[in-house]
Amino acid sequence: MRSQLAWLLAAAGLGLGQASPIPRPASSNVMNAAYPAVWPDGRVTFQLRAPNASRVQLQPGGNDNGLAAAALDMVKGEDGLWSVTTPPAVPGFHYYWFMVDGLRVNDPGSQTYFGWARDTSGIEIPSDEDGYYLARDVPHGQVRMEWYLSKTTGEWRRAFVYTPPGYDSNTRARFPVLYLQHGAGENETGWTRQGRANFILDNLIAATRAVPMIVVMDHGYATALDSPPAAGAGQGAPARGGGASQGPSPFERVIIGDLIPAIDARYRTRATREFRAMAGLSMGSQQTLQITLRHLDTFSAIGLFSGAAPTGDFTTAYGGTLADAADFNRRVRLLWMGAGSVETRVTGAIETSRRQLASHGIANVVTFSSAGTAHEWQTWRRCLHDFAPRLFRN
Amino acid sequence: MRSQLAWLLAAAGLGLGQASPIPRPASSNVMNAAYPAVWPDGRVTFQLRAPNASRVQLQPGGNDNGLAAAALDMVKGEDGLWSVTTPPAVPGFHYYWFMVDGLRVNDPGSQTYFGWARDTSGIEIPSDEDGYYLARDVPHGQVRMEWYLSKTTGEWRRAFVYTPPGYDSNTRARFPVLYLQHGAGENETGWTRQGRANFILDNLIAATRAVPMIVVMDHGYATALDSPPAAGAGQGAPARGGGASQGPSPFERVIIGDLIPAIDARYRTRATREFRAMAGLSMGSQQTLQITLRHLDTFSAIGLFSGAAPTGDFTTAYGGTLADAADFNRRVRLLWMGAGSVETRVTGAIETSRRQLASHGIANVVTFSSAGTAHEWQTWRRCLHDFAPRLFRN
Repeated sequence: MRSQLAWLLAAAGLGLGQASPIPRPASSNVMNAAYPAVWPDGRVTFQLRAPNASRVQLQPGGNDNGLAAAALDMVKGEDGLWSVTTPPAVPGFHYYWFMVDGLRVNDPGSQTYFGWARDTSGIEIPSDEDGYYLARDVPHGQVRMEWYLSKTTGEWRRAFVYTPPGYDSNTRARFPVLYLQHGAGENETGWTRQGRANFILDNLIAATRAVPMIVVMDHGYATALDSPPAAGAGQGAPARGGGASQGPSPFERVIIGDLIPAIDARYRTRATREFRAMAGLSMGSQQTLQITLRHLDTFSAIGLFSGAAPTGDFTTAYGGTLADAADFNRRVRLLWMGAGSVETRVTGAIETSRRQLASHGIANVVTFSSAGTAHEWQTWRRCLHDFAPRLFRN
Repeated sequence: MRSQLAWLLAAAGLGLGQASPIPRPASSNVMNAAYPAVWPDGRVTFQLRAPNASRVQLQPGGNDNGLAAAALDMVKGEDGLWSVTTPPAVPGFHYYWFMVDGLRVNDPGSQTYFGWARDTSGIEIPSDEDGYYLARDVPHGQVRMEWYLSKTTGEWRRAFVYTPPGYDSNTRARFPVLYLQHGAGENETGWTRQGRANFILDNLIAATRAVPMIVVMDHGYATALDSPPAAGAGQGAPARGGGASQGPSPFERVIIGDLIPAIDARYRTRATREFRAMAGLSMGSQQTLQITLRHLDTFSAIGLFSGAAPTGDFTTAYGGTLADAADFNRRVRLLWMGAGSVETRVTGAIETSRRQLASHGIANVVTFSSAGTAHEWQTWRRCLHDFAPRLFRN
């Protein structure tokens, strides 16, 4: 029966195996939510029931991820159900929200993720890449919430700590540590929830493409107990333009004085500069550049994702840290800079920096461009995926 | 000068030390959000900027936590800023949201918590209790996200695992395990985020009031690979009315067949029934009662928070597990039932159960009433705080 039917359909130019494509609930949906739903070609259908609204729009977090270049009007259907189907979106994670008569509203169908300085809806668009950030059938590490008392802020702070597979069973092994920071308006949950850093490391380690390492993801804001109120309002955002001539920021004091000692005391780390790296995205890259260049006794590898790129007069900039290229080359094993190809301003700055570093004789520089992605988490997943295998190699 | 001013103010019936009370941002706010703000007497001021709205209301998640008995109208002020100040709220954690012209909207000033089957705003009202659920200056355990492949569901599932202080340094010690479940519409994050289970255990252990233990908090929903679609739609919610005569639910199969073996393989547990307990709140208490009574070879202590309370003909109910009281008393060291005093239906059911269990000869029964609290997390924090010290005592 089945083969006859298949033959009849084939004769009519249809395929039994080819069910007409239907959208599937996004993996970022809350349980049982049918929408948002992603079509096989990456289009997304969003829905919101708002019977009393006059205008409902989809607002992507950023205008360059394919969902829409600007707020997209939704259409009111039966029972006050508003909906819209977008063009094919760029694969990866995108923040978004609805504008309901001008009010910013989360989608009850999606999980929220801390970004844009609040809990914000997000959607995951599947990729045809190799699944390097999915939970695959390989040994999984753990992600631990670690509380530590900060002398700098006077508060209990929470860091997320990835421990690689085998950390608990292999109790004599010690591990190198990557300190990995989120962007502005995000927090210590970003790299695992939006970034899937733990799955990226799981998969790299399973393929022996990266050495087993601990990854520490802290909250990138700090207000020091001794900060004057005005400085406190800055919440630890780094100074612009190579602020190495300034004093340490509260966040730098937290990282160097509070967090690293706590991690080295509680985890089986290799607690020397050769086995310690720092990387960050966007605001986190500015923090990374500032902190690592001021503490090359603490770090030997630097990752700058979609943000900082050293420039200026290297004889004086960054406190003169790069002035002696041979000395810098001995100390810094990896100076890695990457961004999405859509972030043309950042990729341009990276290229300028790369040339200037090369002409100054700085070695161990790697640059990376993520094809077709913007200032978004898919870029930073790819950055981590390229950066992590280069760490702690000898 | 200061003393003169103080005298003058005192003479006028005022106090210099008594600054006029001002509301403070709730500890559950996102960074830099000034509202919602809590007054010293527990009143809360909520704000939402919605210039185009015709009606904005505050909707507490539940009508018995003091915020409001029903949706509370907010008042529109300048610049479209709506606000309302509630009566004094009951201390603890409360879900809430805004209704904007009938649309349910989260508060951008608050963190979201998974409850009501979606990410929902929540507010923490300070308590004058002894801070047993706050992050105090005591040794802190970790909360670990643990991924395990479930044969039952065919998926990677995530459990939250609390490990007590010293777990990593004291590498020869083995620990008892409490399996602790959330309520309907919540998930594996609830017991640490809303419930603060880790801080409750930290403080109890520091005071030597509870023995160091591992606490495993799983996701309470499961759809089995072999479930027919109709059963799958049930998402693992337990059958009502002592369903021990039915087959195991998918969630029971996950707990018994997938989760416990994974935890015993990966953690230094004491992997016998004497050192294994299960507890849950509301839906989780129904799951706990069903699973523990079907698996007394696996568990020796039972905690039922705001929900299940065994009743019926004990010669046949629950598959006859309670029929032989002497046998049951040998096997179950603790049958603990508690609820909030405001949950009169549940407290009544617990009292009925307590009497019936006593007349049947069931020992080791403890009941608990949380004064002045409803079907809410403050009740369940107090339940855990009373329950945990009674576990694994010999």
